[in-house]
Amino acid sequence: MQVWRIWKSVLTNSFWYSEKITLAPFPRGFHLITDVIVRELPQIRKLEVGTLHLWLQHTSASLTINENADPSVKTDLESWFNHTVREDSSYFTHTYEGSDDMPAHIKSSLLGCEVTIPIHQGKLQLGTWQGIVLGEHRNQGGSRRIVATIQGLEGKTD
Amino acid sequence: MQVWRIWKSVLTNSFWYSEKITLAPFPRGFHLITDVIVRELPQIRKLEVGTLHLWLQHTSASLTINENADPSVKTDLESWFNHTVREDSSYFTHTYEGSDDMPAHIKSSLLGCEVTIPIHQGKLQLGTWQGIVLGEHRNQGGSRRIVATIQGLEGKTD
Amino acid sequence: MQVWRIWKSVLTNSFWYSEKITLAPFPRGFHLITDVIVRELPQIRKLEVGTLHLWLQHTSASLTINENADPSVKTDLESWFNHTVREDSSYFTHTYEGSDDMPAHIKSSLLGCEVTIPIHQGKLQLGTWQGIVLGEHRNQGGSRRIVATIQGLEGKTD
Repeated sequence: MQVWRIWKSVLTNSFWYSEKITLAPFPRGFHLITDVIVRELPQIRKLEVGTLHLWLQHTSASLTINENADPSVKTDLESWFNHTVREDSSYFTHTYEGSDDMPAHIKSSLLGCEVTIPIHQGKLQLGTWQGIVLGEHRNQGGSRRIVATIQGLEGKTD
Repeated sequence: MQVWRIWKSVLTNSFWYSEKITLAPFPRGFHLITDVIVRELPQIRKLEVGTLHLWLQHTSASLTINENADPSVKTDLESWFNHTVREDSSYFTHTYEGSDDMPAHIKSSLLGCEVTIPIHQGKLQLGTWQGIVLGEHRNQGGSRRIVATIQGLEGKTD
Repeated sequence: MQVWRIWKSVLTNSFWYSEKITLAPFPRGFHLITDVIVRELPQIRKLEVGTLHLWLQHTSASLTINENADPSVKTDLESWFNHTVREDSSYFTHTYEGSDDMPAHIKSSLLGCEVTIPIHQGKLQLGTWQGIVLGEHRNQGGSRRIVATIQGLEGKTD
């Protein structure tokens, strides 16, 4: 983790925070990372109101929101994407980085590389069943980097 | 509707507003909700510049932007998603919540659960044909909740 | 380009900027526009921390993030989307604007019409291989408009 800086105003209670988070390598598939993100960013607890923006700096992985409970949802997500974005598509021309590469680029654009989550009274306003999910679409994706940007208004009591 | 609070600064004209909106149940399919959102959020009119962030707190419905005019666009969206994310996919393992459940999770990630719309001179900067669309992907989805976060700078004249 | 206004606070270093960018017409397909965006928005360089939000005001084109290097990635993206969202789908009813119209609406919702990119020390925090990509999904889409909103904190030295 590379903390960039905390910016605060003493005149107002305006707050900005930015940090680059490096994730340990994940195997191909969908992985819940809510706990990792919340643990890395205790600054969320300071905010009365605000937003957390997460930006994955890659084009062959993705960030999405999906169910945080039953692991079969993540397995079926992986199955559906593999059936729908097929590695053996005969019309692919971008093939020299491996048969998993071009499908990974397509999945990354379908799912997106960012989420913006509202913050209220020190907590991410995720629904009961919502979790932050990393989609690793390469066979050997390696570690992945996320730029986290928190902004909002600081509360009085934290 | 549950209003959380309005935050203002008297030193600057910085503005934050956050509210949880509960939508009445919609049938399965795509539904235009621009008018509901604008009616619930008169605070948009106060802002000289800013953004409206909408966050749907669910993993089996979605928020997207699409045509606001011809209803056939919404019908065809529903048809395409049903043909492409098939309920009878033999490889699904997450089936105990009904055959519409796992496809709903996939559609939710494909379309996303959030939009951020720019505000200028008191108005959402939607294009002429753009509307805010709720995708209800369950047969009986029930009521859905959206966390709305408005931030920006207040104008002088409103 | 239509500059709306720059808002600054002298009490804090808070910064908002909003501009409407008109793109020259692109042929159908995926096109890298990072350079156009960065050239139009020198204000990015002023910010110590912040975000750039880009909003495409259309429902038959899209904004996404993908590889900035090999043009074959953009070609294969176009091929995959054409194979997956077929113009000859027999169940489409919204056909009077041409066979490319309804597929364009679907692609626009799959890919989205917006990106929010973090800014740090005067630079967009794109990963090494990330570029801003316009998806033009109509055969004759014409010029397209993007509302750009920059917000953040100004640095001391620019």
